[in-house]
Amino acid sequence: MRIARFLAAGQVHYGIVEGDHLAAISGRPWEGLTVTGETFPLAEVRLLAPVEPPDVFAIGLNYKSHAAESAMELPKAPVIFLKAASSVTGPEEPVVLPAMAPDEVDYEAELAIVIGRPCRKVTEAEALDYVLGYTCGNDVSARDCQLKLDTQWARGKSFETFCPLGPWIETDLDPENAEISLKLNGEEMQHSNTQHMIFPCRYLVSYLSQVTTLRPGSVIMTGTPEGVGFSRKPQVFLRSGDRMEVSIQGIGTLANPVSAEQ
Amino acid sequence: MRIARFLAAGQVHYGIVEGDHLAAISGRPWEGLTVTGETFPLAEVRLLAPVEPPDVFAIGLNYKSHAAESAMELPKAPVIFLKAASSVTGPEEPVVLPAMAPDEVDYEAELAIVIGRPCRKVTEAEALDYVLGYTCGNDVSARDCQLKLDTQWARGKSFETFCPLGPWIETDLDPENAEISLKLNGEEMQHSNTQHMIFPCRYLVSYLSQVTTLRPGSVIMTGTPEGVGFSRKPQVFLRSGDRMEVSIQGIGTLANPVSAEQ
Repeated sequence: MRIARFLAAGQVHYGIVEGDHLAAISGRPWEGLTVTGETFPLAEVRLLAPVEPPDVFAIGLNYKSHAAESAMELPKAPVIFLKAASSVTGPEEPVVLPAMAPDEVDYEAELAIVIGRPCRKVTEAEALDYVLGYTCGNDVSARDCQLKLDTQWARGKSFETFCPLGPWIETDLDPENAEISLKLNGEEMQHSNTQHMIFPCRYLVSYLSQVTTLRPGSVIMTGTPEGVGFSRKPQVFLRSGDRMEVSIQGIGTLANPVSAEQ
Repeated sequence: MRIARFLAAGQVHYGIVEGDHLAAISGRPWEGLTVTGETFPLAEVRLLAPVEPPDVFAIGLNYKSHAAESAMELPKAPVIFLKAASSVTGPEEPVVLPAMAPDEVDYEAELAIVIGRPCRKVTEAEALDYVLGYTCGNDVSARDCQLKLDTQWARGKSFETFCPLGPWIETDLDPENAEISLKLNGEEMQHSNTQHMIFPCRYLVSYLSQVTTLRPGSVIMTGTPEGVGFSRKPQVFLRSGDRMEVSIQGIGTLANPVSAEQ
């Protein structure tokens, strides 16, 4: 099942994707999936980020190939960082190159886990029972802030619009075997499979649930595979007018243009 | 004016402190301060964290004396990190030593800014107009995670209960001249004045508003002065049964016991 959040006639709804329509539900998807009877043509709504997360947890260096290209050691435990919830944006919304640091902004295709019920100290075996579903994420990063100017990654990962999510939450997905790719202006820059994660989704949910309570709607960005722009020779950074497309097998495609800050 | 969030007869309210009573308001304090007419004796309610922040921004090394005791260079720009919103807790709630990292948990008394209206790219001169008020914060930190095990501070700063806030939001405060202290089991461990911040509140609000939109209820933890436990000789870390009291002149005292994880 696919659950979207969308704007129609000035109102925000959650709804279930049914072919070329959306069946609106009352409340938020983790409060039950009661359809209201109202339907909307998918082509006529504006899809939003499928969730407004209370927290955005993120994992660094979770594919061997990306750790290698970043010249960083393989982590022995998940590398946890946070993105500001205010960095979340939706499909087709521009990712804005911040005036403060416009020059080295990079893409990172990621599988994003959406938590479905409060989750605290769960085992790996039960971890995925607490997941509502999965969506495409792009962990946009200002590399100059992240790697040269700041010791902490928080600023470089938290600029407004730096966390596109969408196009919807897919509840039926094997998160440990899905092709993931990113195209920049139509050219494939990243391509891998989530089976190559160092710490798979069940491990990440269990591990983070030892740290704090994962709340309904909270998001875990599970790390990016190789092929990011700053590791290329020559380096590739985002420029106004670019278009990024994150695709995950079984979910769909999250596309965002890039624009300069006004 | 002092604005509290509290639990009375199983219901969560916001209210204005009036002597020994609370005058309940409808909605959240940034939606207007309309009193409902209902009042509660302060002694009979349970005070909660005065806000449920959409984001908890935090600043490292913002007092020269603390940067010196940490043997870290004076920052040229604010050192930004994030605490998980799920780490927020209220007055008198136990700070729990996490099973995952119970041995080197430390206190940090901090002035916490509470944002009152959406704030994006504001100047220093206008920054404080976007602030609802100020409360006491304790940036509890697992030093082993923060400084030895992890490259990012996020985990060590985000364990459940690691962000006590309270007892209320004071709207009438000069944030650039307030005594701040922390007592551990009655003994004063930290004592300074917010005038010694490297980057004062107006600078922090303006700076963060260049990064992203600060939303109503978002919190900025403004950094801690000298005297934290890990810089002492011998080092002092929190143990079950301890009691911390963060006091800020003009606001009041935020007290939290410490307990082991069950």
